[in-house]
Amino acid sequence: MNNNIVIAIDAMGSDRGPKAIIAGASISKDRNPNVSFIFFGNEIEIKGLLSKRKNLSNSSEVIHTSEFISSDEKPSLALRRRKVTSMGMAIDCVAQGKADAIVSAGNTGALMAISKLQLRTLKGISRPAIAATLPHKHGEFVMLDLGANLECNAQNLVEFSIMGYEFAKVVLGQNMPRVALLNVGTENEKGKANIQEAAEILKKSSISKSFVGFVEGNALTLGVADVIVTDGFSGNIALKTAEGIAKLCGEYLKALFKGSILGKIGYLLMRSSFLTLKDKLDPRKRNGAMFLGLNGIVVKSHGGADSLSFASALDITVDMVKGGAAKKIIDNLNTFSIDR
Amino acid sequence: MNNNIVIAIDAMGSDRGPKAIIAGASISKDRNPNVSFIFFGNEIEIKGLLSKRKNLSNSSEVIHTSEFISSDEKPSLALRRRKVTSMGMAIDCVAQGKADAIVSAGNTGALMAISKLQLRTLKGISRPAIAATLPHKHGEFVMLDLGANLECNAQNLVEFSIMGYEFAKVVLGQNMPRVALLNVGTENEKGKANIQEAAEILKKSSISKSFVGFVEGNALTLGVADVIVTDGFSGNIALKTAEGIAKLCGEYLKALFKGSILGKIGYLLMRSSFLTLKDKLDPRKRNGAMFLGLNGIVVKSHGGADSLSFASALDITVDMVKGGAAKKIIDNLNTFSIDR
Repeated sequence: MNNNIVIAIDAMGSDRGPKAIIAGASISKDRNPNVSFIFFGNEIEIKGLLSKRKNLSNSSEVIHTSEFISSDEKPSLALRRRKVTSMGMAIDCVAQGKADAIVSAGNTGALMAISKLQLRTLKGISRPAIAATLPHKHGEFVMLDLGANLECNAQNLVEFSIMGYEFAKVVLGQNMPRVALLNVGTENEKGKANIQEAAEILKKSSISKSFVGFVEGNALTLGVADVIVTDGFSGNIALKTAEGIAKLCGEYLKALFKGSILGKIGYLLMRSSFLTLKDKLDPRKRNGAMFLGLNGIVVKSHGGADSLSFASALDITVDMVKGGAAKKIIDNLNTFSIDR
Repeated sequence: MNNNIVIAIDAMGSDRGPKAIIAGASISKDRNPNVSFIFFGNEIEIKGLLSKRKNLSNSSEVIHTSEFISSDEKPSLALRRRKVTSMGMAIDCVAQGKADAIVSAGNTGALMAISKLQLRTLKGISRPAIAATLPHKHGEFVMLDLGANLECNAQNLVEFSIMGYEFAKVVLGQNMPRVALLNVGTENEKGKANIQEAAEILKKSSISKSFVGFVEGNALTLGVADVIVTDGFSGNIALKTAEGIAKLCGEYLKALFKGSILGKIGYLLMRSSFLTLKDKLDPRKRNGAMFLGLNGIVVKSHGGADSLSFASALDITVDMVKGGAAKKIIDNLNTFSIDR
């Protein structure tokens, strides 16, 4: 498998079972022929599914695990079972250098806990963060932390900013992504002490030219920043609120088209533009949250991801491996002058 | 003015000037004939505007102030100028019992600071909170705090829950509103220590039967709770994120209808349903954030509110005065057994 990208997959993490995982891997394999997969989980089940996927059956490896981590399992328990579970063994595969990245649709807390222990955080990073790309008016932006660290100090926010900056370079393909801190106002004196302190550090940092200051919640969709940094509590609330509102708008729209005969005719007339819009908003195309700050690439897929959605998570993983973001984050941190 | 409701209005707080304020008052007066207004601000300007509004000119009072508080003025400075500014004098009018409520479209921080000093917090409440009603799938819910208290302990969240509960009874007309705490997961062990502690207190409180536990950001729109309680930082982020996404969806929809000839025909066919939807989503109909926890009713209108929007803020103020929520909150707190 030299020169190839190898991705370890926790085949048992999905709410939809291994079927969606294997189907997703097959979709992604078509788009990324140089990638091969190592599946961790029930060998009989996985091999049965692989036999139906010609593009996977020859190039994939299956490592049997009799146990897996449930979606509501406490991270502390999951941690103890890391050596016998599909998630734990898939992470270990990256720790041992046998795979370039691990992707799981399983329990987020468990995935973070095991990844931290097995892969360790990057030198200079005190806590890993969860990052994802989200749509704005004119394109996409990166947001972090989305839930790994509910409470953060200024130092954490600064580290997230640097990690997000490097991540954005890779996934958005931008040379100098603009970095902003999420806050309740844009003026200097607004917000909590930790955010103000982080802003002061960033203004003097190696990414000072990319730091655009504070943004408010309504700016998320405006495209005024490429990286929006916040603590894991607010990030999670903002992300899920956005999902909820987008879904509600979609339902209103559906009702509009289905509510009357005229609506139905309208729908038929506008079908192609409507499908373009639907496609644009499809959250399945943006699946895959990245755990940044670890010595290894860990990607969390949505637990309820279908095959298309899981394929997106694999695609973003391939981009990360190719982009070498982890090494770039380390390099940037080494040249980064802040007191530790 | 006996038996009537009297509302003190800071006529100088709006980004659009006194014109939008007076026009809004006129709209609300038509809907609430028993209400009379006392306007604070530039007498000549206000009287000129009132002379064109027959329904206001006879029933309104104008109190001249030569100064007003600017939108970016620091609360500490605004506090010192409270005796000579339209906002400060309007609040004082409530403190002196000459008006039942004060409405301002001005600087939020200044309005809160002066209100706290002049009106004091209710007995048993350590900090006032900002609350508003927002739309969900099947109706409306109350959310607080929306930005007054960026960091909150368990006790603050419990107090907000009780205030929100009483507020929801009045504005949503419900007997037993369901109260939830905003969190990053619904399981007991999820979230920050202060939220978990608040949940434990609420489970043993006088509103225990109304407490439905934790909700996540995507539940805001689902209608699973009538009152959603969070700290001011997260509340502000959630509210503004929701506004941003809703606006983006609206723009996508507009582009859909305007993007092609077929879209334009579709729009013509569906115009009436579309206008109903637009009306449903119109944020102007939900203007008016309430400062809960004070000895007096203080309502903050959006700074950029137009006349229709300002009228909504006045309507909600009238409902609050009629509903006697402040007294109910005090009564509930008195029967509320928590350690202080």
